[in-house]
Amino acid sequence: MQPEWERLLSDKVAHRLEPSLIGEMMMLVKELGAISFTAGEPSADLYPLEDLRRSFDRAFGEASLFSYYPHNGGLRELRRWISDWMKSDGLAPRWLSEEEVLLTNGSQEGIHLLAEAFIAEGDAIIVESPTYPEALLTFRRQGARFLSVPVDRDGIIPEALEKVLRTSGPVKFIYTIVNFHNPAGVTLSVERRKKLLEIASKYGILIFEDDPYGHLRYDGDHLPTIFSLDNEGLVLFACSFSKILAPGTRVAWAVGDRDLIRSLVMVKQGVDLCTSVVAQALVYEYCRQGNMDSFLPKIIAHYGKKRDAMAQAFAKHLPADVRFVKPQGGFFFWLKLPGVDTTKLFFKAIEHKVAFVTGPSFFPAGGGSDNLRTCFTFAAPDQIEEGARRLAQAIADLKKG
Amino acid sequence: MQPEWERLLSDKVAHRLEPSLIGEMMMLVKELGAISFTAGEPSADLYPLEDLRRSFDRAFGEASLFSYYPHNGGLRELRRWISDWMKSDGLAPRWLSEEEVLLTNGSQEGIHLLAEAFIAEGDAIIVESPTYPEALLTFRRQGARFLSVPVDRDGIIPEALEKVLRTSGPVKFIYTIVNFHNPAGVTLSVERRKKLLEIASKYGILIFEDDPYGHLRYDGDHLPTIFSLDNEGLVLFACSFSKILAPGTRVAWAVGDRDLIRSLVMVKQGVDLCTSVVAQALVYEYCRQGNMDSFLPKIIAHYGKKRDAMAQAFAKHLPADVRFVKPQGGFFFWLKLPGVDTTKLFFKAIEHKVAFVTGPSFFPAGGGSDNLRTCFTFAAPDQIEEGARRLAQAIADLKKG
Repeated sequence: MQPEWERLLSDKVAHRLEPSLIGEMMMLVKELGAISFTAGEPSADLYPLEDLRRSFDRAFGEASLFSYYPHNGGLRELRRWISDWMKSDGLAPRWLSEEEVLLTNGSQEGIHLLAEAFIAEGDAIIVESPTYPEALLTFRRQGARFLSVPVDRDGIIPEALEKVLRTSGPVKFIYTIVNFHNPAGVTLSVERRKKLLEIASKYGILIFEDDPYGHLRYDGDHLPTIFSLDNEGLVLFACSFSKILAPGTRVAWAVGDRDLIRSLVMVKQGVDLCTSVVAQALVYEYCRQGNMDSFLPKIIAHYGKKRDAMAQAFAKHLPADVRFVKPQGGFFFWLKLPGVDTTKLFFKAIEHKVAFVTGPSFFPAGGGSDNLRTCFTFAAPDQIEEGARRLAQAIADLKKG
Repeated sequence: MQPEWERLLSDKVAHRLEPSLIGEMMMLVKELGAISFTAGEPSADLYPLEDLRRSFDRAFGEASLFSYYPHNGGLRELRRWISDWMKSDGLAPRWLSEEEVLLTNGSQEGIHLLAEAFIAEGDAIIVESPTYPEALLTFRRQGARFLSVPVDRDGIIPEALEKVLRTSGPVKFIYTIVNFHNPAGVTLSVERRKKLLEIASKYGILIFEDDPYGHLRYDGDHLPTIFSLDNEGLVLFACSFSKILAPGTRVAWAVGDRDLIRSLVMVKQGVDLCTSVVAQALVYEYCRQGNMDSFLPKIIAHYGKKRDAMAQAFAKHLPADVRFVKPQGGFFFWLKLPGVDTTKLFFKAIEHKVAFVTGPSFFPAGGGSDNLRTCFTFAAPDQIEEGARRLAQAIADLKKG
């Protein structure tokens, strides 16, 4: 029997329900036992299990760990820790306090809250081309109309952005991934960060600076966040413990203008009241004990080696015309394979038991058919070269026809 | 400087941002050190801390506890446990499997997901009068138009529901709290459960059966869920570990028609990818060890005594014209104080350091000015009588003028 509820779905979701790429990819790879260059997943063998266990034991003494937390923005102590940490790292301006920090159920919830707060059906937003697919999914769900601006080796191109804005009519916000871009691997230059702020100020647009990878730099110097350069309340900055501690905690944060954060807290009340207190308390205890100071260098060293291994393996095994930029940090290589349809290549690669994410997934409005993204953090070190070899075989197979 | 973003807020939230009652109340009570009859909070001294610690230690051995979980609907093992538990308790039909279970970040997220899936701007939904204020907040945010149906001693009144539906035009769903109603304390009779199903089938409407309190029955026999009586896929049933274990886990669930659950899983992907894996794994390990079997009788006995204490204290101290029904379970008494404005009374009560929730908060379209809700689970046993005494003084003060 056809359930009656199907015709009751709201227009907002009825034609916009699509499975999440991340989940689909992870399940496929698991089923096939393939080498995974797919989801942006940390290396599970690095999770600091013993420090987390100790943190839980310490946090545990209090029943409050299991109570409601009355502030929907999250555990005050963790918000204060994040605020202090960001300031001491130069990621945030001096005025930042816990009042301007919102804890979310993963970065994805931060994206959702902003989307729900700002996007009405048909509203225009600026997204990068390429960009993070799950953000597109969330924005599309709220009825966003995408204006896309290309990314080059220095990140989003300000001239292209301004060209779009001159004729676009009103735009709600600019969604930009500033460091070690997902998927493009590139980092927005300092001059462009300043230019982006100027443009946002001129047109009265919010900048959503998504920075889940910023701490994971393997070469060169950290660049100032756009958030730290702003003094007009134009930036919402988002980061997460998913990539720098463990994704299963689902604890992330957003910082910005106090009134903006307050609005997002109220949106969050209607979404899920607050983030898991158990998860927040665990993360807080872990951070409070200074564990991030020792853990971050450890994963940076580990991931840096994996990045080098992938760059070497790609240079050694892939055809000479395959182009990529070695990223200075983060999780991803972004490859261009001239003349290769990477969606067709994906099925060949799966036969060879290696998986990546196809290019078109990252484009808001078409393109990327000869691009693909590989993640170097999840696969074991010895799998990286083997995966590159298999990928080369898949390319050769496809070219043979 | 006026931040530019303020004028950018979507219409959907711009005039619909209101602080959550729960959070506001909890913070106020905490600040004042008042006896709290406010938020529906479990008694923190009952949290099974040692069993939870043991569960965490056991769950802990695996790094997967801190990884992404690839299925956005949640940990398969916990979904299966819930499915088996519901069937063994007669709460669910035999066909239920983990495929029809969705784990959410608290019940509130289940409400949000349903709202986002079904409500387009201006869509009509049926809500009870009175009802749970945070559900109204979420539904309103999505643009719902409320059609309200009164509740009497046996729950929502089917004749009144049908009268509304005969002239209302299309309605998306009926939101009903079936057991130990929040705030009304009443329980929907079996005949009315069947009648509700008939009406939903006749008009092609989904029933959202919200049942966070169903396990907490202190008198009489458990009644069949509407979900277990349905064979047309017309019911989404929601429950939570918040009231029966600890709210700080933020783990709740919804069950229903498989395609409906699949749609809600896809909505959830855009909201927060998945619920905290740490929290889910902790709850699963706790449940898997059979701890619910021993914990539930313990809290039922404890809360049953508190309910009796509150009934006796109210009978002893409150004026004779104050009316209430002793609830058979759950968390709440719902009082009618003829001629008393409970919003004015609230401020008097605060002076006497006792707090409750005022009636009008629970009404979708006005009413309830002489009602108030008290929660009996949170306050310590010796505070219940003292709180009733203070409430009586506040009433006397207010009448003196």
